[in-house]
Amino acid sequence: MDQQTINKDRYPLLSTIDTPADLKQLSRQQLKDLCGEIRGFLIETLAENPGHFASSMGAVELTVGLHYVFDTPYDRIVWDVGHQAYGHKLITGRRDKFHTNRKLNGISGFPTPAESEYDTFMAGHASNSISAALGMAVATRLKKENPDRKVIAVIGDASISGGLAFEGLNNAANTPNNLIIILNDNNMSIDTNVGSLHRYLGKIHTSKFYNTLRYKTFGWMKKIGLLNDRRKDFILRFNNSIKSIIGKRQNIFEGLNIRYFGPLDGHDLDMLIDAFRDIRDLQGPRIIHLRTIKGKGMPAAEKDPSSWHAPGKFDPVSGVRLASQKADATPKFQDVFGETLLELAKNNDKIIGITAAMPSGTSMSIMQKAMPERVFDVGISEGHAVTFAGGLAKEGQIPFVAIYSSFLQRAYDQIIHDVAIQKLKVVFCIDRAGLVGDDGVTHHGAFDLAYMRSVPGMTIAAPRDEHALRNMLYTAQLPDATEGPVAIRYPRGCGEIAEWHNEMERMEVGKAEKLRDGDQVTVISLGTIAGQVRRGIDIAAEKANVNATHYDAVWLKPLDEEMMREIAAKGCPIVTVEDASVNGGLGSAVAEWLTENNISIPVTRLGLPAENFVQHGTVPQLQKICGIDAESISEAIIKAAKA
Amino acid sequence: MDQQTINKDRYPLLSTIDTPADLKQLSRQQLKDLCGEIRGFLIETLAENPGHFASSMGAVELTVGLHYVFDTPYDRIVWDVGHQAYGHKLITGRRDKFHTNRKLNGISGFPTPAESEYDTFMAGHASNSISAALGMAVATRLKKENPDRKVIAVIGDASISGGLAFEGLNNAANTPNNLIIILNDNNMSIDTNVGSLHRYLGKIHTSKFYNTLRYKTFGWMKKIGLLNDRRKDFILRFNNSIKSIIGKRQNIFEGLNIRYFGPLDGHDLDMLIDAFRDIRDLQGPRIIHLRTIKGKGMPAAEKDPSSWHAPGKFDPVSGVRLASQKADATPKFQDVFGETLLELAKNNDKIIGITAAMPSGTSMSIMQKAMPERVFDVGISEGHAVTFAGGLAKEGQIPFVAIYSSFLQRAYDQIIHDVAIQKLKVVFCIDRAGLVGDDGVTHHGAFDLAYMRSVPGMTIAAPRDEHALRNMLYTAQLPDATEGPVAIRYPRGCGEIAEWHNEMERMEVGKAEKLRDGDQVTVISLGTIAGQVRRGIDIAAEKANVNATHYDAVWLKPLDEEMMREIAAKGCPIVTVEDASVNGGLGSAVAEWLTENNISIPVTRLGLPAENFVQHGTVPQLQKICGIDAESISEAIIKAAKA
Repeated sequence: MDQQTINKDRYPLLSTIDTPADLKQLSRQQLKDLCGEIRGFLIETLAENPGHFASSMGAVELTVGLHYVFDTPYDRIVWDVGHQAYGHKLITGRRDKFHTNRKLNGISGFPTPAESEYDTFMAGHASNSISAALGMAVATRLKKENPDRKVIAVIGDASISGGLAFEGLNNAANTPNNLIIILNDNNMSIDTNVGSLHRYLGKIHTSKFYNTLRYKTFGWMKKIGLLNDRRKDFILRFNNSIKSIIGKRQNIFEGLNIRYFGPLDGHDLDMLIDAFRDIRDLQGPRIIHLRTIKGKGMPAAEKDPSSWHAPGKFDPVSGVRLASQKADATPKFQDVFGETLLELAKNNDKIIGITAAMPSGTSMSIMQKAMPERVFDVGISEGHAVTFAGGLAKEGQIPFVAIYSSFLQRAYDQIIHDVAIQKLKVVFCIDRAGLVGDDGVTHHGAFDLAYMRSVPGMTIAAPRDEHALRNMLYTAQLPDATEGPVAIRYPRGCGEIAEWHNEMERMEVGKAEKLRDGDQVTVISLGTIAGQVRRGIDIAAEKANVNATHYDAVWLKPLDEEMMREIAAKGCPIVTVEDASVNGGLGSAVAEWLTENNISIPVTRLGLPAENFVQHGTVPQLQKICGIDAESISEAIIKAAKA
Repeated sequence: MDQQTINKDRYPLLSTIDTPADLKQLSRQQLKDLCGEIRGFLIETLAENPGHFASSMGAVELTVGLHYVFDTPYDRIVWDVGHQAYGHKLITGRRDKFHTNRKLNGISGFPTPAESEYDTFMAGHASNSISAALGMAVATRLKKENPDRKVIAVIGDASISGGLAFEGLNNAANTPNNLIIILNDNNMSIDTNVGSLHRYLGKIHTSKFYNTLRYKTFGWMKKIGLLNDRRKDFILRFNNSIKSIIGKRQNIFEGLNIRYFGPLDGHDLDMLIDAFRDIRDLQGPRIIHLRTIKGKGMPAAEKDPSSWHAPGKFDPVSGVRLASQKADATPKFQDVFGETLLELAKNNDKIIGITAAMPSGTSMSIMQKAMPERVFDVGISEGHAVTFAGGLAKEGQIPFVAIYSSFLQRAYDQIIHDVAIQKLKVVFCIDRAGLVGDDGVTHHGAFDLAYMRSVPGMTIAAPRDEHALRNMLYTAQLPDATEGPVAIRYPRGCGEIAEWHNEMERMEVGKAEKLRDGDQVTVISLGTIAGQVRRGIDIAAEKANVNATHYDAVWLKPLDEEMMREIAAKGCPIVTVEDASVNGGLGSAVAEWLTENNISIPVTRLGLPAENFVQHGTVPQLQKICGIDAESISEAIIKAAKA
């Protein structure tokens, strides 16, 4: 991997930190200075190489404090989601590779065990850290080899609202374990947090009187030597009682039998180090609540943390975000979706928008802004989003649920049980379908076609361009066009039509479109990958004089049988192309139809590999690796013609 | 549907209740008598027609109270899981069909909107009621047509520990709505409850001093006329403060900003009616905590509610459960699994057992009893179960996660993100795979082959008999036989081998078995459906003199390519048979292989229908409907031979 030596003059401390062990040589003041250097390095690098920014800026002190106090990698830190783990990467041996962040063959933007022993568990999808860390803590106890190993889950205030995190918390106190949970509460996840738990965390913060009293008591007990482990235990219980009496408020975590400490200022490194040491050797599950500022250290980001979650390129000095340099900008599919949904909602008062913590990412924010009472951001809770949509649909509303393909995996059972069995009209707007690029392995929307196609009664469509997306959204909300749920999948990023704002038309459900006629090979594609197919066919014609027919299936389910009969009659070898796993989607549907109808035509299925997960890189790079770029498609066409 | 008139002498009140409106004519004493009649009727009917028993017995008063106080079906009651809803079915027009419960074309064992307008939402999978009811409550508010409509979720203490329920609670206070949540806390779900929340609910109960004080105050305020809606609000807040001060304990629900009342005795009908009336017209989300006794009214069931969850046939007078009448009993696959797991765990100390609230159902209880420290019942939290297993596996343990196929849908993302991407060795023991019979539409394990097959690196197997199951379990725990996760699916119920306890052998992963040679048709099956195939081939030979080859694929992934090449060389038409959705599983894999390899052989795919959900009935009845019984298979073979 490409290495780049750090500037020792600008980063006199960071340049000496090759592993967390090096931290232990630093004085408290040097540790604080190191935090400043880490922030400087993040700003310098990310200004040029875009990535997630504000979360890691807010987690610098807690990162340094954890690695300073704990003995990593012997002790295990499990980062939830991992947006906040760039600082962790810098001080665990990846400083000199950090400029390759999220690039092909570079380091991953998320903690990844395959990359480093310091990355103890996969991150990318929210809310898994407590359960995973609990597994590790229990394994440590069972193996008896490393009784003093600590396992620390670091979870944000948005992630902790996910059902999986709750399940983890609910189980954490139920079995002997030594789990430490750090709640990194920056009061603002990717978008503004929602839900009661969020409000609740806010309330805790305001209980200043209690905190003052508590820490004074605690400090005093420690000072006069009254504090040992058993006594500390007692004092904490005592403190908790005080808290409940004085604060007249409830503590959810203690209700779940997890000892709670906080909230503490997550940027006060001295206090963090002391606090981490204090709780390090306690027994049993415990949670420390830290208040941090997302974007800390970059004024622009502190002011607008949502925009600075992943700001793209920016000027490191002025803090001005640089607009992408695209000349004649076409809109993102997300914006076409968002604008269209609002347009439809204006004419159909049954339409409801639902997003799970991603109003900006999905552009549900457009409708949210115009019709706040008809859009529900349910926070990180995809399962709830879908069941909630089921309840709305049961009472006659038409919910449009916009969730990223890979996150919608969290709601697979709810799609079946709470929507499909009841044939409810819920429109699943599957965002980030297919390759997503630099977010990588956890974020590619590879499986939605497969997991949706086996659900009885599901209608599945994928637009090849902006106009088709608009027509599909329009058709989905018509009372008589479809029965039951509809899934519409579209990719991350921009399309190709600048004039996207067509007059919407009703589509015929299950009707494919023939885009080009040829006589040697038949290509069937689904979705925006049609663009690569078009170019692939051109290349095949130029290079090898092979003429291919091109169908856009448009609908995966129902598959257009008339199209299939035409294709069968023609008898040319078939190439299917989809921006999704080759197992279970378009290629499978075509193969099933042919063998069922006793038609002997070979099928080359192109798509994401069945046996490997795709890593990170740009979308064109990854398309090439998967063999669904124009060049690879042309080769498959030529090969099919010659077979 | 088959009707049967109720005995009016024995059930003088129940026989008059055709709809909940009829309840309103009864006196308080008559309502109490009705509760007795409902219990008597449940005992009489279920003794003969087995079903879920103890949950409904414990919910009689709350059912009568809800329908008496609220105006159903205008008001919406959403039952969670629905085990407890038999009483509800009896008083909402299904009394005279109740003897058809869970039978083919009879009423469903769960609330089902397709069956009755009183069944407002699908039930069967736990923890969805709050989210669904919230959707309904919000829809009511948005539509403005029925501003006074109440929506009531009834959820048990086990279900509320599921992450989906927490997501629902966390969102419930976040948007204007009028949701009422009834927590039916019987202290024991299908198996004993686990988790902190459970312990927490127990603690609340013991706070007698507080309850006494609170209800005295409340009663007094009401008596002297001080209570109106606004004031009641104030008093409740006041009460909550008292509670937090006196009880020195935390209330999780109030931490989530949901007003909490309770705990109340869920069998005191007078108090229930008063309490339901009191909270009916309050605004905003609120939860009433009822303590009930599972099995109430049947001493044997009260004493052993786990066994009486679904007791099978029993003597209605003595309360003795009747052993099933099978002559030479073969064991259930569950017991073969459970015994084998213990056997393996004795020799491999890395093996850990995990179940999600189903130790008895999965027979994980066998290892749990022998090695309690190595078995984790995580409660109803399938997602946590899988991520927790990931954490254990990351530290070198070998978790065997036994979850029913349809419930494992809840953990689809965790399977991908927390296990498969990291290639962790977690063994998924997929119980209740395929048709499950009388539990019906929500419980059939139809989709696991499809949803597992698209996951890169997953090894998937299905034993055709007990010996194969044991060999698979043995092979899965060997350090060098497989890499990454393994899924082993097996059905509900008994196999065919009485002498199941073979000496376990290592299997070759990805190696199919040829069971019979023929020359006209090739049948490939996966799993225990091989038994039906064997008989189907016999029938085809007898009836039409058609000889079929029979392969047991054994492994869906990797699919045995050598088998496929043999089959291709032979060139006979293929029939695939699987006890799973025809989309995405064995049939799809075979079709893909053939078209990819340009081999022209027709494939008839038999399995669960792609376009319908299968309802309830006996397994043989449902196999016939799906066309995977011996007779249907023989017909498919004959047809394929003649095509």
